[in-house]
Amino acid sequence: MAKPRKQPRPKAQTPKGFRDYFGAEVTQRAEMLHRIQGVYHRYGFDVLESSAVETVEALGKFLPDVDRPNEGVFAWQEADEDGKGDWLALRYDLTAPLARVYAQHRNDLPTPYRRYAMGPVWRNEKPGPGRFRQFYQCDADTVGSASMAADAEICAMLADTLEAVGIARADYLIRVNNRKVLNGVLEVVGLQDAEKQAAVLRTIDKFDKVGETGVRQLLGQGRLDASGAYIGGVGLSDEQIDTVVAFLNSNAIVEDELKNGPPKSDDRIPGGMGTRLSDPHEKSEHAGRVWNWGVLDHLMRLVGKTEIGFQGLQELGEISDLLAAQGYGPDRIVIDPSVVRGLGYYTGPVYEAELTFEILDEKGRKRQFGSVAGGGRYDDLVKRFTGQEVPATGISIGVDRLLAALREKGRIESAARGPVVVTVMDRDRMADYQAMVAELRNAGIRAEVYLGNPKNFGNQLRYADRRGSPVAIIEGGDEKAAGIVQVKDLILGAQIAESATLEEWKERPSQFELPRAELVTGVREILGSHGLLDADGRYA
Amino acid sequence: MAKPRKQPRPKAQTPKGFRDYFGAEVTQRAEMLHRIQGVYHRYGFDVLESSAVETVEALGKFLPDVDRPNEGVFAWQEADEDGKGDWLALRYDLTAPLARVYAQHRNDLPTPYRRYAMGPVWRNEKPGPGRFRQFYQCDADTVGSASMAADAEICAMLADTLEAVGIARADYLIRVNNRKVLNGVLEVVGLQDAEKQAAVLRTIDKFDKVGETGVRQLLGQGRLDASGAYIGGVGLSDEQIDTVVAFLNSNAIVEDELKNGPPKSDDRIPGGMGTRLSDPHEKSEHAGRVWNWGVLDHLMRLVGKTEIGFQGLQELGEISDLLAAQGYGPDRIVIDPSVVRGLGYYTGPVYEAELTFEILDEKGRKRQFGSVAGGGRYDDLVKRFTGQEVPATGISIGVDRLLAALREKGRIESAARGPVVVTVMDRDRMADYQAMVAELRNAGIRAEVYLGNPKNFGNQLRYADRRGSPVAIIEGGDEKAAGIVQVKDLILGAQIAESATLEEWKERPSQFELPRAELVTGVREILGSHGLLDADGRYA
Repeated sequence: MAKPRKQPRPKAQTPKGFRDYFGAEVTQRAEMLHRIQGVYHRYGFDVLESSAVETVEALGKFLPDVDRPNEGVFAWQEADEDGKGDWLALRYDLTAPLARVYAQHRNDLPTPYRRYAMGPVWRNEKPGPGRFRQFYQCDADTVGSASMAADAEICAMLADTLEAVGIARADYLIRVNNRKVLNGVLEVVGLQDAEKQAAVLRTIDKFDKVGETGVRQLLGQGRLDASGAYIGGVGLSDEQIDTVVAFLNSNAIVEDELKNGPPKSDDRIPGGMGTRLSDPHEKSEHAGRVWNWGVLDHLMRLVGKTEIGFQGLQELGEISDLLAAQGYGPDRIVIDPSVVRGLGYYTGPVYEAELTFEILDEKGRKRQFGSVAGGGRYDDLVKRFTGQEVPATGISIGVDRLLAALREKGRIESAARGPVVVTVMDRDRMADYQAMVAELRNAGIRAEVYLGNPKNFGNQLRYADRRGSPVAIIEGGDEKAAGIVQVKDLILGAQIAESATLEEWKERPSQFELPRAELVTGVREILGSHGLLDADGRYA
Repeated sequence: MAKPRKQPRPKAQTPKGFRDYFGAEVTQRAEMLHRIQGVYHRYGFDVLESSAVETVEALGKFLPDVDRPNEGVFAWQEADEDGKGDWLALRYDLTAPLARVYAQHRNDLPTPYRRYAMGPVWRNEKPGPGRFRQFYQCDADTVGSASMAADAEICAMLADTLEAVGIARADYLIRVNNRKVLNGVLEVVGLQDAEKQAAVLRTIDKFDKVGETGVRQLLGQGRLDASGAYIGGVGLSDEQIDTVVAFLNSNAIVEDELKNGPPKSDDRIPGGMGTRLSDPHEKSEHAGRVWNWGVLDHLMRLVGKTEIGFQGLQELGEISDLLAAQGYGPDRIVIDPSVVRGLGYYTGPVYEAELTFEILDEKGRKRQFGSVAGGGRYDDLVKRFTGQEVPATGISIGVDRLLAALREKGRIESAARGPVVVTVMDRDRMADYQAMVAELRNAGIRAEVYLGNPKNFGNQLRYADRRGSPVAIIEGGDEKAAGIVQVKDLILGAQIAESATLEEWKERPSQFELPRAELVTGVREILGSHGLLDADGRYA
């Protein structure tokens, strides 16, 4: 027999770029997903759970001339008899699987098909701080409807969703644009070169960060970035640059116009949207419309002469009107021509939700929290499979970023409370202690008995501390004989230890005796005094 | 430039052995997991979510002499600079990741560490009917406690869990055994040969299926199985076989003893467990103990002479007493010496939950539903990483089988209801229709507007039908002018269409008019008449 090789011990390590999530991190995400799901469901969306594994062919990441699928996905080849089976991969988002599912099951699905999906996706990318190779997405898409009402619905639902998870109305803004309007401005500027077009779009995308000055430099001769590196410019003329800047500044210009009277131009947006209300300052339920109409009006003057731009503005007008009719004004959903959302993929309206409150970045500087969700209309995804164009529009929420935002705003308690701990004074009476926890649990109180070695009582209290337990129960032989239990209020105990004077200590003892029969009542009283009981008197 | 290759269209297909889950299938599983989670949490278990991807090294499936990890897992090699990175794999269960997590984070985790986990696992196995390569598990384990109280707790929690998801008390049984007791019977029989020992354990595992006669044949000269194939026997002597059969029949023998008086033997189980109550027929809270004590007593006479068997029975006695003290008698949790749970891995108590009601199999024959959960004590898993033995015990619930059982018992509604559908009679008044669904949603009623091409009204009603909608709303120009809406009760409509006479049809119209302002009230009334509102008057 061959000598068995001596193997080194395996390393107990997550793979690079992956991590474990413990306790509250998991339940908080689950709670958030539950709330998002509630809104999606109420809007008539149906849940879909596709498998984590897809064929590389279906994901569309297999290039014809390479042996292995290109980077970005985790992929492997199935071993069939010849060792040469299908290439499989972990999904990298929830949209590619949706396209596959719709193409595969289209005869059994309603049309339009509203679906939501939530779950992890995987990216084979270089991990960075806070960037992991497995993360959650939460998507909602409507497949099979070309109507702008589908886009308006997605935007309204996104607003409702953000509020449902605890983002206050003033703390977010959904910015809406249309790729056709962007194509319109490229046409007005007179750019035919595809590379230059892409460079202009990338610059528009940076308006948020670099401002008007930065955009002018990037569109012109180039600029030095913050790190001192020189970034080449697109080389547009001053006139061309003025057009793009006027386009990007639409909202500011219109806000100014609203203060200083209507513009002189008489260009009107067709379809009724250009009909300006008599007094734009009027405080009414239509106030929201005024702004969006004003922006549309302004954009119409800039790009309305191009067919594609005109069409895009008509679509935006339709979305804006539908939203206004439901009460979603520009305090929540606003037209913003600087939204791009990547270069390929989207074919019509695009949306982006950003949180507008400020946080401190890693260097202690204030900055806006930024984007937590985005999406838009894409009409080509299903065509890959069936040859037929199927219109679709949808949104993806960056679950982990949104969670981080809620933690930042203090909307999520960071430290979760542990169970009530029944300590073990006499290991032969384990059955008594188990009976106590059973009583507590039956009363809806999360509880456990200490299961480690009970010899050292200090270890038991340290354990309760590490678990974040609010209450510990003690029943030694004397207590048993007297028919009582000792109840220790660990939260009060910690507070007293930290700050109380001797008098307070004496007045508010954190440990007291109770008749055994009053165990549940007593524990509930302590939990209630710390605001830890829910409406049904449970501590779950 | 090279001519671009013409690529065929990709196939819209899930990979072999994978599937998609739609709507109710997903929400029903989520609801079940939510209930399981509620019980686990109440017992003091904390949730852990590790990543789907682990290093093959940590999973322990990499054999030293092969190039690729062995079969059973989906694995691939990371591409580093030399193209030779770590081997990664999808987790095949939730226990191996727990061992890795505990070894990695043990200094930050409480000891004992009670954790639960739920999520998909992946097996690279040949798929079969109803067998998929991605499926859900839901585990709870206690790491770091050698106490039998940990095992008793797991069993009690499993019973509570089954009841919480809707399995009635009479419909399940948790069977408990101990690997040490099995080793004891092997010792008593006098088997030293490892292969023969394994063959005997495999036979014991089949007692359920083949009965006493089958076991006798398999332990002796072999037997013909149902398909006519001959299965070789272990070749034990009649005396050896009698011992194993008496061992397996313990429960039946003790039941018989309880009817016909106490046994003559005076062997007693140490630790107080052998102290038989004066009248075993006494109907009292101790009735449960009698049976388990009787079985333990019987087993003690068979294998108590071996050190290992004695120790195993002591452990079972401790578990049994702890459970009895909390009211878990053998109507729910029973000692059963025929439980094996695989050959390796477990080192002490083992448990198995089975559903005892009968279902019809694919050939229309009655059979018991069988096992839905199992587990036991394993003390070696963490040692692989740290060299230290860490005691652990836990349970894994087969989520999909348990769901199937609940569907079988009619405990889960199979057809989920769709949203209220607001139809589109006039596409220019989309804003009006959106306002209606907004009103309904704000009242907690799931609703949507039809987003397909509205031209063909029949398509809209067919859509509502396919969605399983309970109610459709219609507002054409005439209705709008009159300030009313048409409300169509689709459930009643379907019932009438199926069975009603003309008189009934006239008496109970399934479509009626409402003032527009009473839309929500009217819809709620219809939903209520079909029992579709929850306690808060919501249809969510």
